[in-house]
Amino acid sequence: MDFEDELIAQRNPLPDAVGGRLREQLVFLAEVDKLKTVLRRSPLAAADRRENDAEHSWHLALMVAVLAEHSDEVIDVGRTVQLVVVHDLVEIYAGDTPLYDDEGRESQQQREIAAADRLFGLLPDDQERYFRELWDEFEARRSPEARFAKAMDRVQPLLLNWLAGGGTWRTPGVTADTVRERKAVIGEASDPLWTAARSLIDEGERRGWVAPGEERPD
Amino acid sequence: MDFEDELIAQRNPLPDAVGGRLREQLVFLAEVDKLKTVLRRSPLAAADRRENDAEHSWHLALMVAVLAEHSDEVIDVGRTVQLVVVHDLVEIYAGDTPLYDDEGRESQQQREIAAADRLFGLLPDDQERYFRELWDEFEARRSPEARFAKAMDRVQPLLLNWLAGGGTWRTPGVTADTVRERKAVIGEASDPLWTAARSLIDEGERRGWVAPGEERPD
Repeated sequence: MDFEDELIAQRNPLPDAVGGRLREQLVFLAEVDKLKTVLRRSPLAAADRRENDAEHSWHLALMVAVLAEHSDEVIDVGRTVQLVVVHDLVEIYAGDTPLYDDEGRESQQQREIAAADRLFGLLPDDQERYFRELWDEFEARRSPEARFAKAMDRVQPLLLNWLAGGGTWRTPGVTADTVRERKAVIGEASDPLWTAARSLIDEGERRGWVAPGEERPD
Repeated sequence: MDFEDELIAQRNPLPDAVGGRLREQLVFLAEVDKLKTVLRRSPLAAADRRENDAEHSWHLALMVAVLAEHSDEVIDVGRTVQLVVVHDLVEIYAGDTPLYDDEGRESQQQREIAAADRLFGLLPDDQERYFRELWDEFEARRSPEARFAKAMDRVQPLLLNWLAGGGTWRTPGVTADTVRERKAVIGEASDPLWTAARSLIDEGERRGWVAPGEERPD
């Protein structure tokens, strides 16, 4: 965690005329530029490079707006979009933890809570609470909106892996059953999307884009 | 306009089991991956490269959620976030038209309408209309939400230019008055944000990050 790093806004501090809440908000909005540099494992479909967290978050936001009709429960689309826009912010300091990295996932929660304290702490107190609660709601899948947002977070890389003919499905040790197990949260939000997701995984397995089923021994 | 290009989803067509509306929606959601490859002129604050449209759209979405309290009119935050998520999609085929590129801006509308026909046409009819209307609302600044969304689209690169100590303000032919004129739409949405924006431009002019005022002759 790069907590020793200076804030982006410290390089060229804002003019003194910009004060109060707005100054704190702009310092936060400058700092979050760092999300554009956090690389994920997923390959883009449109270019030969890995995706970053900001692009990924935008893609989820659009997916929410397009796919909301498939939610099993009624959801507030505007709130769900906000959940996905915020959901990866803690990775600015905590880094991305790939879905198939079991070791990284053990320390993930602790790293991300420290990151949330630092990042959301830049905001005025009421907004620190507001954004912190959005993030908690997403992580805990505490509402229909959060369950759908989390489903989008699983569907999007599945689509990218499909388009890449494998992508992170080819991670050593990963089998089609690992993928099915990690993607099962889609089914908590949407029957039709979980059915479609399983079609992609099944067909990917048939084509050899992911190792055949069978749970790993551990 | 790369209208001859194949659709991204044509490379690895989805399994036949995925049909109907969901298939059209996923083809659209694969195609929009191309937004991550449309480069803007603005420099990132967090890395030494230019920003792409997907990152920019995500940044605006978060700005809406953080800065909404400064809107002069009451706005629906969830709807405003959707407007900014969608606002640059047409650039997938029409390309980015920089704010200070007067020649490009003349043909911009025509290119973008053709792009909207093609891109939104991938969706089921009702959603084609829905997303087209969101984009029209944004472009025409037809609602308080659209005016605030457009203001974010002007504030965000202003903040990046400030953090870069100039950025696109250094475009040949651009003066502080050009910047003030192109940024004036911020004042249609928010007095406090327009005041802050002018502080940044004024101070940038004092520091020589943008050429001194004086309108260009044309």
